[in-house]
Amino acid sequence: MRAKIVTIGDEILIGQIVDTNSAWLSSELNRYGIAVGEILSISDDGDAIVSTLDTALRDYDLVLVTGGLGPTKDDITKQSLCRLFGCGLRNDEASFDHNREMLAQRGIPFTELNRRQSEVPEACTVLFNRNGTAPGMMFERKGHYMACMPGVPYEMKTIFAEQLAPRLDGMFRLGAVYHRTMITTGIAESVLAATIESWETGLREGLKLAYLPNPNGVRLRLSSYTLDREEAERAVEKAFRELEKIIPENIVGYEGTSVESAVADMLRDGGHTLSVAESCTGGRIASRFTAMAGASDYFLGGVTAYTADMKTRVLGVPQTVIAEHGVVSEQVARAMAEGVAALTGSDFAIATTGVAGPSGGTEQTPVGTVWMAVKTPWGTVAEVRVFNSEREVNIERASAYVMDMLRRRIRKA
Amino acid sequence: MRAKIVTIGDEILIGQIVDTNSAWLSSELNRYGIAVGEILSISDDGDAIVSTLDTALRDYDLVLVTGGLGPTKDDITKQSLCRLFGCGLRNDEASFDHNREMLAQRGIPFTELNRRQSEVPEACTVLFNRNGTAPGMMFERKGHYMACMPGVPYEMKTIFAEQLAPRLDGMFRLGAVYHRTMITTGIAESVLAATIESWETGLREGLKLAYLPNPNGVRLRLSSYTLDREEAERAVEKAFRELEKIIPENIVGYEGTSVESAVADMLRDGGHTLSVAESCTGGRIASRFTAMAGASDYFLGGVTAYTADMKTRVLGVPQTVIAEHGVVSEQVARAMAEGVAALTGSDFAIATTGVAGPSGGTEQTPVGTVWMAVKTPWGTVAEVRVFNSEREVNIERASAYVMDMLRRRIRKA
Repeated sequence: MRAKIVTIGDEILIGQIVDTNSAWLSSELNRYGIAVGEILSISDDGDAIVSTLDTALRDYDLVLVTGGLGPTKDDITKQSLCRLFGCGLRNDEASFDHNREMLAQRGIPFTELNRRQSEVPEACTVLFNRNGTAPGMMFERKGHYMACMPGVPYEMKTIFAEQLAPRLDGMFRLGAVYHRTMITTGIAESVLAATIESWETGLREGLKLAYLPNPNGVRLRLSSYTLDREEAERAVEKAFRELEKIIPENIVGYEGTSVESAVADMLRDGGHTLSVAESCTGGRIASRFTAMAGASDYFLGGVTAYTADMKTRVLGVPQTVIAEHGVVSEQVARAMAEGVAALTGSDFAIATTGVAGPSGGTEQTPVGTVWMAVKTPWGTVAEVRVFNSEREVNIERASAYVMDMLRRRIRKA
Repeated sequence: MRAKIVTIGDEILIGQIVDTNSAWLSSELNRYGIAVGEILSISDDGDAIVSTLDTALRDYDLVLVTGGLGPTKDDITKQSLCRLFGCGLRNDEASFDHNREMLAQRGIPFTELNRRQSEVPEACTVLFNRNGTAPGMMFERKGHYMACMPGVPYEMKTIFAEQLAPRLDGMFRLGAVYHRTMITTGIAESVLAATIESWETGLREGLKLAYLPNPNGVRLRLSSYTLDREEAERAVEKAFRELEKIIPENIVGYEGTSVESAVADMLRDGGHTLSVAESCTGGRIASRFTAMAGASDYFLGGVTAYTADMKTRVLGVPQTVIAEHGVVSEQVARAMAEGVAALTGSDFAIATTGVAGPSGGTEQTPVGTVWMAVKTPWGTVAEVRVFNSEREVNIERASAYVMDMLRRRIRKA
């Protein structure tokens, strides 16, 4: 069972927006045992839309299309679908009523443009859009299916989950695709590869390994496309159990987990609390913790101290320490972590002070230098790293690194 | 002059990573007058790589390939390139020396895997990778060109900028593609479309308008693919000047600008300073300001007060105010903004308090409710909105909304 994902929109081809929908849809389809063969972005051009979708519907069992369904004049997907299926437009009453009510609630006037949004090609089955005004549409041709959804991510996700996913089982005899991913941190890709080489060579037939590095670490994915589901699960489980013995220190967890999520679980389980004091990471660490639902279980708060004055007055870093050692120093990082813990009453704390770049570096403290400290009930530790990259990556790496310092400290306790 | 972008990697097709490289490359190619016709993601499969690249190199003047060049066993792009061009591998000495030195500096041992990274197909010209160990490669066939680069974003970007971009002029007679985008905020897409309808209808031939909504607002892009460069610039400039008269309140700026960047410019120009007090946005606002280089010119710092206790003790919100009005209230938002300004000595301040979700809502204060306050030298204002979406979107919208409140206040002053 193979699918193709097609996104429509000049905004993608000129690089104005990043296509995040396709990754989400691919991941969902894989869960249902449907492998994605290709992801293609094409322009808002009627001829390109018709010929691309025609070919895709011939070559693939399932075609998922996103984008091109907004209320404004740049959107020509619906007209192209009418051409492809040789039909006209009809009004969908359920969508019409929903749209009128939705805009009324938001206090937005109902315009002619909004009225046209509930029009759909006669050949389609409507996939109701609870979160928006552009209905999804499903088409069938010779046992192959195509679903078109708006490009707004949370509208698309809801339509997929509520309208499309429940129908997949009836449309196809679903096969088995199985992936499981281990999240590692603190070990470079080439060192990791050398460390686990004999384990990798010994993987049973039918399992495929992939290395996926990012600023937070290297993820290791095992995939099976040929084994049946239970056999695949058992084989992957066994392989990862072996790997856990080889690199126990470097494993954060599995699947979509992250170092902050691992730390959050540990803190929650132990009934602990956390606060953060950030200089060069500028609120990124607080933002990563609070992006997770339920952060208030353990996260008390944070201070982004972008000036020396705030470090002194709010966090209680002694002026003499700053004068003697400089703002980017082990002593200041330690004092910040201890200061924010004292301020908030948390038993754990994290602190960063460094030079994110692109300017502000010196010979002694080049751009990318970050001192990081972790305060726990068993004491405070500090480490320095030079994250020799661009501002955004330096902020991301320092955030991940200091969160992992905390993870390792709790793990060893 | 038309290009195709191909990304290689199962991690994209199973939805494990989002492809951000293609958007960046598209945007760069457009600057050089090269239009991107398609973006395609394919799997780490030798046959698929060979046949896809063969076709692409026939149909397009330029093919940019990213991904599939890591040191580990899942990467088979180089072998496929040798098949496509009928050649073997050779060692590239400059890359070899660079890789050995780079790993030595980082204290990572040099392995057999690293040695193989400096091997390249004999048919290619090497595009030196200053930031990494996988060299870029350029191929030519019948006046069509293909460049292959690693998938790590900052390595790819440096290779493009330093090695590929300077060669484009010699490779092609570059045409003219011109885009310019206005960033609007605070007006719904359908209302905006109705408001500017007669302006849109009156656009001169050769200009194409696109609406690009996201949680921060709607961007309006004018594009020309047919006019010559100077004519396109003049026509677009004239059209936007007219539009500025129709929606003056809603314009943040142009191109890659953002509401935080507009605020940053205004603060910097006026010699002002800013601090933030965040509850439900959890550090996101601080993080968005500090993600921009030079934030220390105006940004003093922030407090993420996730508990009532921190709001009281650090920000000085009176306990009686919280007891009487609740944590999510106009009074608390105002007191937080004024409290953080007093704490840091900034003349401007932003505050948020709300329910990001998914849980924590009540009948009176449903999930998505956020009180936002802005403190300026001319007084403090507060507004409430119900951002009726998922946690991540609620955080993003509230952050954008309150930053825009500040923008509007400074603009009117």
